[in-house]
Amino acid sequence: MSYRRTIKIVCGFAGGSAVLVVAAAAAEYQGCFGHTRAARWSLFNVLQAAQPAGNRTVESTGNAWDFNWDKRDPSALLTNGKKKEVVSEDPSSEQDNGKPKATRNILLIRHSQYNLGGNGDHERILTPLGREQAEFTGQRLAALGLKYDIMVHSTMARATETANIISKYLPGVELVSCDLLREGAPIQPVPPVTHWKPDAVQYHEDGARIEAAFRRYIHRADPKQEEDSYEIIVCHANVIRYFVCRALQFPPEGWLRIGLNNGSITWLTVRPSGRVALRTLGDSGFMPPDKLTRT
Amino acid sequence: MSYRRTIKIVCGFAGGSAVLVVAAAAAEYQGCFGHTRAARWSLFNVLQAAQPAGNRTVESTGNAWDFNWDKRDPSALLTNGKKKEVVSEDPSSEQDNGKPKATRNILLIRHSQYNLGGNGDHERILTPLGREQAEFTGQRLAALGLKYDIMVHSTMARATETANIISKYLPGVELVSCDLLREGAPIQPVPPVTHWKPDAVQYHEDGARIEAAFRRYIHRADPKQEEDSYEIIVCHANVIRYFVCRALQFPPEGWLRIGLNNGSITWLTVRPSGRVALRTLGDSGFMPPDKLTRT
Repeated sequence: MSYRRTIKIVCGFAGGSAVLVVAAAAAEYQGCFGHTRAARWSLFNVLQAAQPAGNRTVESTGNAWDFNWDKRDPSALLTNGKKKEVVSEDPSSEQDNGKPKATRNILLIRHSQYNLGGNGDHERILTPLGREQAEFTGQRLAALGLKYDIMVHSTMARATETANIISKYLPGVELVSCDLLREGAPIQPVPPVTHWKPDAVQYHEDGARIEAAFRRYIHRADPKQEEDSYEIIVCHANVIRYFVCRALQFPPEGWLRIGLNNGSITWLTVRPSGRVALRTLGDSGFMPPDKLTRT
Repeated sequence: MSYRRTIKIVCGFAGGSAVLVVAAAAAEYQGCFGHTRAARWSLFNVLQAAQPAGNRTVESTGNAWDFNWDKRDPSALLTNGKKKEVVSEDPSSEQDNGKPKATRNILLIRHSQYNLGGNGDHERILTPLGREQAEFTGQRLAALGLKYDIMVHSTMARATETANIISKYLPGVELVSCDLLREGAPIQPVPPVTHWKPDAVQYHEDGARIEAAFRRYIHRADPKQEEDSYEIIVCHANVIRYFVCRALQFPPEGWLRIGLNNGSITWLTVRPSGRVALRTLGDSGFMPPDKLTRT
């Protein structure tokens, strides 16, 4: 818990703030997106690679598995102007300092039910049922008894409200907000649907932003992280579904083949080797059936 | 419930029996695998297509979506010696008789905890905790209040026992067993793992069998099915994970990127159009945290 907290860097965004939990990249950052040349270069890279839907192919690896998917594989690590890390096969070796050793657990929570008819985000607040759902989610997360390191939430009203309610059940867990996690259109879904047709400009902007969120939050542990970590991210259905496809190296265009109940828990683990496992998706069994919604 | 039941065909297997719920193919079958020429031809096709790992590529569609994945797309239906179905765009048209109109819900349950040290399947029975987990699963399925049509279970001891306990909570729901659903090695996982190395012959036999199980149970509704259906399948982690990848048209080699708790619920829906959605994967939130296991 303490390690992660010490390396966090608060980034200013319009309407919110974000915590950078990318431990491995911390040394190169002095601020968020723009204070140093390295940071500007990183942002450029993120946005270059996060091309809008249609002409982006870098994320799908077909039937293969890219062990360096998060660019943190020590055996492939060649940073600008730095020597390649020497990695030993002997786990007790001092040379293993450059190798991740902890597992990151990332619990993705979909916000609970909200007022769909609200005029703008600030009016789209939780319904009474939505507030009740968030209580159930908070109780379940507390009952799981994990040593949560941090809870990050999207700056949208429904995610903020959900996170605040959950937070009551997790005293001492730091709560921070992040604009990158806001809802959006990550990539054109395949197969396409007729009832939801975002404009091209939405995919253009949201696609790069949500890909940037993926790269910030979903990656293996930094070599300096000693203990397994448990992080909660409260955000949105499209963001979570896209994260899951990307993390498992399944075609990201398939995100709309997945559905998620409000207040549900989706659990990803990232091993030191870069292996990723989906432990549960949309778990909402802790809610009575008459409290389940998907809107 | 009644429609599906009327078209079922009981198939004899060594050590168990199976119910064929493939309504669309029922007319071609007079028994299971071999009683008629059509049936023999179908078996040949299943086994031909279900090649062992390594040289099987038909199942992965990359970023595309194959609407005729289950060979039941009316617009593509060209049966042997039969005329192509004429499909109208007008949903009220009489010509729409050939079009599916119901949604199939398939709830895949992983058996609960069992005695891993048992000598052979018959000794690998549920632990006391496993029996307790199955009670939780049965209670949850009952609480969901769905009109279950049938419960099919693998003939292995742990799946049979789990299904029998669940069955107490679902009076009137027919319980049948099927050998195709037994645990096995569906396809070589990518990335490979070191702790689990089945012999090539296991993939060779299990791969074809589990693919045959997928084709039998996971498909869109028959055009004659009037109402949405809810079917429970109690089987095994590898089988469920393979089914999920195949149903979502994600690379089946990715099945080991998914984990499943004992007694958990994984819910697939197949729409009349052939669209598939994963509504939850490994939902076990209905169990107290101290009852959760993954072995």
